[in-house]
Amino acid sequence: MDYQRINRRLEHKGRIVDVYTDTMKLPDGREAEWDYIDHKGASAIVPVNSEGKIIMVRQYRNAPERYTLEIPAGGLNRGEDRELAAMRELEEETGYRTEKVEHLLDLYTTVAFCNELISIYYTEDLKPSKQHLDEDEFVEVEAYTLEELVAMILNGTIQDAKTISAILAYKAKKNL
Amino acid sequence: MDYQRINRRLEHKGRIVDVYTDTMKLPDGREAEWDYIDHKGASAIVPVNSEGKIIMVRQYRNAPERYTLEIPAGGLNRGEDRELAAMRELEEETGYRTEKVEHLLDLYTTVAFCNELISIYYTEDLKPSKQHLDEDEFVEVEAYTLEELVAMILNGTIQDAKTISAILAYKAKKNL
Repeated sequence: MDYQRINRRLEHKGRIVDVYTDTMKLPDGREAEWDYIDHKGASAIVPVNSEGKIIMVRQYRNAPERYTLEIPAGGLNRGEDRELAAMRELEEETGYRTEKVEHLLDLYTTVAFCNELISIYYTEDLKPSKQHLDEDEFVEVEAYTLEELVAMILNGTIQDAKTISAILAYKAKKNL
Repeated sequence: MDYQRINRRLEHKGRIVDVYTDTMKLPDGREAEWDYIDHKGASAIVPVNSEGKIIMVRQYRNAPERYTLEIPAGGLNRGEDRELAAMRELEEETGYRTEKVEHLLDLYTTVAFCNELISIYYTEDLKPSKQHLDEDEFVEVEAYTLEELVAMILNGTIQDAKTISAILAYKAKKNL
C-alpha cells in the first residue's frame, strides 16, 4: 500500500507550530486533504532524587485551561541536541542539574496530525543548582514517590500524555 | 498566580483542527501570544481477546511519515459519547465488537498548545464482527501479548503516545 504526498500548503506560521494542509494520494488512487502541524520537537526528563522521589513541575496550561502536574520538559532550541535539551530544561525548570542521563523513550504526541517528537530521558543523579525560567514560565516544583505518581495516573489526577508515558515506562523499565 | 486569556484570534480552520493565536496576560502583568489548536477530542481502546492478546492496528501516518502500530482510536463525531465512540472505532477498525468497556484513563496529547483529550477504555469481552473503515483509512489488524507490546515500547518500536500510555496503564492497573 502506498501513500503519496502531492502537495503541502502553508496555512499559518505560529509561535511554536506551523500549520499546513497536505494533499495526499491514497492507496486506492483517490485524493484527500489532511491537516499537518509542524513542531520542532521537545525533550523531557524523569528526574529521580537520592530518596527515589521524582521531581515534578506544576504549571498553568492554556489549552486544557488548568494547572497540570508534569515531568520537566520543553521545546528544542534550533539545532539543539535532544539530550542536552533535557538537561537544560531540568535545570531551568526545577533548579536541579545532572551530568548523566539515560534515554527512556521517544514518542509522537499526536500522530494523526502533528510531527512533534518528544525525547524522554531519566536521571538518578541530581545535584542542586538554580531555577531560571523562561520569561513566560511560572512553575512550582514538587516531589513524589513513583507509587504516588502511578496512583495519580490511574485515578485521573495526571492527564498529560508525555508524563503518563514517561512515569509508566520508567516503572516498567526498572521493574518497579 | 493568575493567567488570563485576553483574546483568541482564529488563524485557520482545518479539516480536524482549528488554529488560533491566544493573547495571554501573565501573572506578572506582561502579555504573551501563545498558539492554540482546537481539536474535538478522540476515543481509544485496549481490546484484549480471550487468549489475553491485544488487538492492534497498523496504518500509515503522514505526520511522522511512517507506518505506526497503535491501539484502535479515532476522533469523536459531533456530540458523540466517548465510550460509544471507543466501541464504534473498535468495530470499524478491527472487525471486533464489544458491549462492555471499562474506563482506563483520559489524556491530553500535547498540553502546551492543543486541547485534544483522548478517552481510553479497555475491554476483555470481544466478539467477531466486520471491519468497515473510513474512506481514507487503510488499516492492518494484528494481535500481540502484553509482554510483547511492553518490550516494543521499551525498545522504541512503538512511539505513539496514546498507545504507550494505554498499554502501560493497562499493565499497571491489572498488576501484570
